Amino acid sequence: MPTTTPAETLGRAADFFRTHAERVAAIGIASFGPIDLDERSPTFGWVTTTPKPGWARANVVGAFRALSVPVAFDTDVNGAALGEHRWGAGHGVDPFVYVTVGTGIGGGAIVNGRPLHGLVHPEMGHLAIPRDPADPFAGACPYHGDCLEGLASGPAMQQRWGMPPEGLPANHAAWVLEAHYLALGLVTWVCTLSPRRILLGGGVMRQEWLFEMIREDLGRLLNGYVRAKELMENLNQYVIPPKLGNRSGIVGALVLAEQAYQKQQDLASP
Amino acid sequence: MPTTTPAETLGRAADFFRTHAERVAAIGIASFGPIDLDERSPTFGWVTTTPKPGWARANVVGAFRALSVPVAFDTDVNGAALGEHRWGAGHGVDPFVYVTVGTGIGGGAIVNGRPLHGLVHPEMGHLAIPRDPADPFAGACPYHGDCLEGLASGPAMQQRWGMPPEGLPANHAAWVLEAHYLALGLVTWVCTLSPRRILLGGGVMRQEWLFEMIREDLGRLLNGYVRAKELMENLNQYVIPPKLGNRSGIVGALVLAEQAYQKQQDLASP
Repeated sequence: MPTTTPAETLGRAADFFRTHAERVAAIGIASFGPIDLDERSPTFGWVTTTPKPGWARANVVGAFRALSVPVAFDTDVNGAALGEHRWGAGHGVDPFVYVTVGTGIGGGAIVNGRPLHGLVHPEMGHLAIPRDPADPFAGACPYHGDCLEGLASGPAMQQRWGMPPEGLPANHAAWVLEAHYLALGLVTWVCTLSPRRILLGGGVMRQEWLFEMIREDLGRLLNGYVRAKELMENLNQYVIPPKLGNRSGIVGALVLAEQAYQKQQDLASP
Repeated sequence: MPTTTPAETLGRAADFFRTHAERVAAIGIASFGPIDLDERSPTFGWVTTTPKPGWARANVVGAFRALSVPVAFDTDVNGAALGEHRWGAGHGVDPFVYVTVGTGIGGGAIVNGRPLHGLVHPEMGHLAIPRDPADPFAGACPYHGDCLEGLASGPAMQQRWGMPPEGLPANHAAWVLEAHYLALGLVTWVCTLSPRRILLGGGVMRQEWLFEMIREDLGRLLNGYVRAKELMENLNQYVIPPKLGNRSGIVGALVLAEQAYQKQQDLASP
């Protein structure tokens, strides 16, 4: 179903489950963010700030409460990371990072088998990265201008080049810059989380030539400082696409639902 | 004892413990890095790459093997993070980050109660950050030029301003730039790890006025995007100095030794 207003979209989703209520044991939600994941917070289950019209302060979890089943809630990218960790290209890889490059840029991380939560959740797209000195584009992020998302998301590319990324041919200069900005993001994740693998998904990454461009730039930027065979020799196994394709997130949501169900069972049986 | 060559320094340290062998149950080492933490690696326990003369490929753990006690090995900053997590300003705070700004810049993170390890370990100083357009300094890092460490470590400040940081008065322009670069690092750690607190230690941070300058810049850079009271209102409790001062690392090394001892005991008693 299309994403329109929160009331309409969440209402339709809740209706769908209500008409199948006898087959619904738990609900897992992998939502775009930023979201409130703190169960003790009065705004738990809400989208908090977002530039997406109408969605700031939308109560996502609340829309499913009436179903009286356990509801698990996490970010779309933590969900996708969880899905890939269970059944995809991140199976058994810990810590690992899943990043989507599409309408926005976001990342989820699995550390010690669990999605990384903290004060809130990672916001991997909103890194400050060095804009290319020759790049006059001020960036498209309404909060930070030329943060990673502001420079390298799909809408940022569209705004800069006057056409959507999928319309730009492989030999267009846009891709050199795009690969460079994404490689700068990867440097940050390598230096901060030291993941054993990084998956790159989302609409922009469907341009498959980007992977090799990003790997080359990443190797050049790290410059041999971080001594690991994965980074020095085997970057083609280190920076890869998700195995579940578009379905990483939905699979992750099912894992979240399963965990919520299991948790309820564990609490019920002493 | 002074740090000279690896053979001399590690030899002296091992001699010290050998002369007190009857009182040594385990050894914990919190070492500068990068280091090899992979117990299955042939170079486990070594310093790997480092610009510090003579120390690349130094076998740190090997120097203590002859004592026949368990030896735990981690980075100095993971050690400091562990020390502060147990007894300091990070007590019970999870995830949290400890960063030292001194001869280099490095950071350790505690996630789910444990120091974060991955492919190797975090290298939080080697982030790519946007250099100020008006800053002509090319950076001091031999690997990356103007990475965070290359722009904001003590030696970088000395190289740029012609005097050590402690010689620069509080109203010197150097501190505005220094606070800005460190705040850019903090943005990265907030967006990637979402820590519940960030401790800043090391020689440069002994200039106490830096804390408030960094907090102000961090608030401005995040621009209200990450909705958490800690970041919007209570930054003076979010970015703070370590409680154990210079001793975070040595306390962390003791925690590492204790853990190594406990692990041995657990293995010995079925």
